[in-house]
Amino acid sequence: MESGVYMELMSQQRRFSGSVGIVGLGLIGGSLGLDLQSLGWHVHGLVHRESTAERARVRGLADEVSTDPQVLANCELVILALPLAQLLSPEPALLHALPETAVVTDVGSVKAPVLKVWSQLHPRFVASHPMAGTAEAGVEAGLLGLFEHRPWVATPDHRTDPEALEVVHQLAMALGSQWLTADAESHDQAVALISHMPVLVSAALLRAAGAQSDPAVFDLAKALASTGFADTTRVGGGNPQLGTAMAATNTAAILRGLQDYRQSLEQLEALVVAGQWSALQAELERTHELRPGFLAASDGLKPQP
Amino acid sequence: MESGVYMELMSQQRRFSGSVGIVGLGLIGGSLGLDLQSLGWHVHGLVHRESTAERARVRGLADEVSTDPQVLANCELVILALPLAQLLSPEPALLHALPETAVVTDVGSVKAPVLKVWSQLHPRFVASHPMAGTAEAGVEAGLLGLFEHRPWVATPDHRTDPEALEVVHQLAMALGSQWLTADAESHDQAVALISHMPVLVSAALLRAAGAQSDPAVFDLAKALASTGFADTTRVGGGNPQLGTAMAATNTAAILRGLQDYRQSLEQLEALVVAGQWSALQAELERTHELRPGFLAASDGLKPQP
Repeated sequence: MESGVYMELMSQQRRFSGSVGIVGLGLIGGSLGLDLQSLGWHVHGLVHRESTAERARVRGLADEVSTDPQVLANCELVILALPLAQLLSPEPALLHALPETAVVTDVGSVKAPVLKVWSQLHPRFVASHPMAGTAEAGVEAGLLGLFEHRPWVATPDHRTDPEALEVVHQLAMALGSQWLTADAESHDQAVALISHMPVLVSAALLRAAGAQSDPAVFDLAKALASTGFADTTRVGGGNPQLGTAMAATNTAAILRGLQDYRQSLEQLEALVVAGQWSALQAELERTHELRPGFLAASDGLKPQP
Repeated sequence: MESGVYMELMSQQRRFSGSVGIVGLGLIGGSLGLDLQSLGWHVHGLVHRESTAERARVRGLADEVSTDPQVLANCELVILALPLAQLLSPEPALLHALPETAVVTDVGSVKAPVLKVWSQLHPRFVASHPMAGTAEAGVEAGLLGLFEHRPWVATPDHRTDPEALEVVHQLAMALGSQWLTADAESHDQAVALISHMPVLVSAALLRAAGAQSDPAVFDLAKALASTGFADTTRVGGGNPQLGTAMAATNTAAILRGLQDYRQSLEQLEALVVAGQWSALQAELERTHELRPGFLAASDGLKPQP
């Protein structure tokens, strides 16, 4: 059984025939279901509500969709595509239904807490994080090809089964992702910096603009705000549940990031207070040069409204 | 003479035949030159260097391009499209060449200091600010139709000649802009909030990410940064000269904005520290609802890379 799914995934030239379970058919789970079916897998989807199951069937997100965890019974690979809160406190019925021989992986955007919980719960668990778009959510959001050219990070530790890790590696490759591995703490600090902290930095800007007590300034700010403001505030005006879940699960890394951020902003502010314009310009030249190094992963991705 | 240019601009049905001077043929000046020629104006461009004049002639940014301020001699309307520093310390030769009867306006992104200087320098000065894109700069950047559907704010005070103001109003309308008037202080506070302060907020995020001392985290952050980070850092990685000029000329408003911003961020951080997740979610729901009100002016504008 173990080498079965491994061999399937290794031989990418022919069509796969294994069974994969996907728990949750939202943006990530639904997209995985579409992609894996197109690669020849038999996809078993587990969802919470019958109404979701019906929509998932209509959209063809899986070959079989059920609200009964037994739908996972014969799966060689199970992907947990649940919201972080549910992933960190899994239901007993789900745990009971996971085949012990299956490779189990997740798609959560925070890895250390997930690894801590799940390495106790399943012998073949692999913590992983496909970095795909999150503007849409729910059973209507899944789409084909979501993971192509996107980073897929696994965060193995000494307890991780190397063969199970390789199964997830081949899964990511089959979906066209860019495979990376990192320790969970480095991953969580990196995503705090480039994804979770920016939500707060950006939301704080909207709050500051929205809190203007002078109505003339407030109305003018709304009338004059252009693409620059739209871009800087996009993630801060995004999905409130997602931003909160990130903050609740990656708290320590976000607070470290915010400490660095506050210091960074205070340094710039001090230059403005002191009127040190050539020093400010030198700092802005540095950020101008820094930014392209952070854009490689989003090259070719469409900007969002 | 005074009513000449006014009548020209009022009768938009027929082609104009007046003479307009444009001082500086960069993105804004060059775009004005192209638009005004297409509307039938005779455009006189004044630039600093002969090499710039040659490029401006090749690009057809004006009917006549010179490095000699006397090129403005017969203009009924002169538009100062200079960088803020030069606008605030105009050269004596330029001041000497401005016809006293001409309407004089500017395009600077900060208005109170400009109004203060120029209301002393010319009797028919009108402070104005067309809000058009600034990603590109220089004599190669100007393009037709840049001002269409974009806000054009004038900031008159009690010293402003009403007829001169109306000339600038008609200019803005002829170019397809959305006309607004405001007092200079409200304008400056509004643009500090939605344009100048975001540069620092955004640059501070790049600096915080760039200052990571752990190379594993730094490399991972670069590899994983996606559209969210790209958007939030776009203005902070923009034109360093422009960001510095804004900070140097709109200092007080930016510092007030930064004070509000810091308080706003600290409130969010306090919720994270205290683990008040439902309160954090309520705040993120509020920013989610706030943002669309700030997007009206950028509707239909293309997002930038």
